[in-house]
Amino acid sequence: MENRELHGGEARLCPRFHHAIELIGRRWSGALIMLLVQKESARYSDLLAAIPGISDRLLSERLRELESEGIVARSVEPGPPVRVTYRLTDAGRALEPAIYGLARWADTWIPEPRAVAKTG
Amino acid sequence: MENRELHGGEARLCPRFHHAIELIGRRWSGALIMLLVQKESARYSDLLAAIPGISDRLLSERLRELESEGIVARSVEPGPPVRVTYRLTDAGRALEPAIYGLARWADTWIPEPRAVAKTG
Repeated sequence: MENRELHGGEARLCPRFHHAIELIGRRWSGALIMLLVQKESARYSDLLAAIPGISDRLLSERLRELESEGIVARSVEPGPPVRVTYRLTDAGRALEPAIYGLARWADTWIPEPRAVAKTG
Repeated sequence: MENRELHGGEARLCPRFHHAIELIGRRWSGALIMLLVQKESARYSDLLAAIPGISDRLLSERLRELESEGIVARSVEPGPPVRVTYRLTDAGRALEPAIYGLARWADTWIPEPRAVAKTG
């Protein structure tokens, strides 16, 4: 298995793996990548609506961060109204197998969130 | 693609995926899982030595967290000296494809950390 060698053998830590996992694991970043994997592109307002609980400030910050890491591309279509859309770059698209691998793991091993029981 | 449906279609966010990605993305958690994927089991001191920069307190905290999430199992062999070892549970082992998927992505897309140039 190539990656056993690339990333250890002596079980040492590969700094590039470490960077990658902490980048996509940052609060809401994995969620944003998952949403963009599922769509060609998304408007800022779509992303804001799709993630319950994210603040406007934090969404902007995460998108800027993913943009500076080369995972997300931002484009502005002149208006009015101006439309700002986001899509994954080639690097971002290349995350798809890893993201779906983790999604499959979550389907098997993470319990269903507890539903709030309602009576009457 | 099954997961397109399970995790979106309308590009909504699956809470189990979100939990999973933020769990393994937490500071040092992905690193610990990667180290344990590469070994049958590891002693606490091995893990501390393998991750440059992690503090004793943070390593204990992360291991307890991964234990409570059912990803890592801790065993104590009576001594003296007492040996405390950690290994992945079945759920933890099941993360292997996703972890290696991300490692392959990092090999391709994350730049090599800058080497400090030395002369003389």
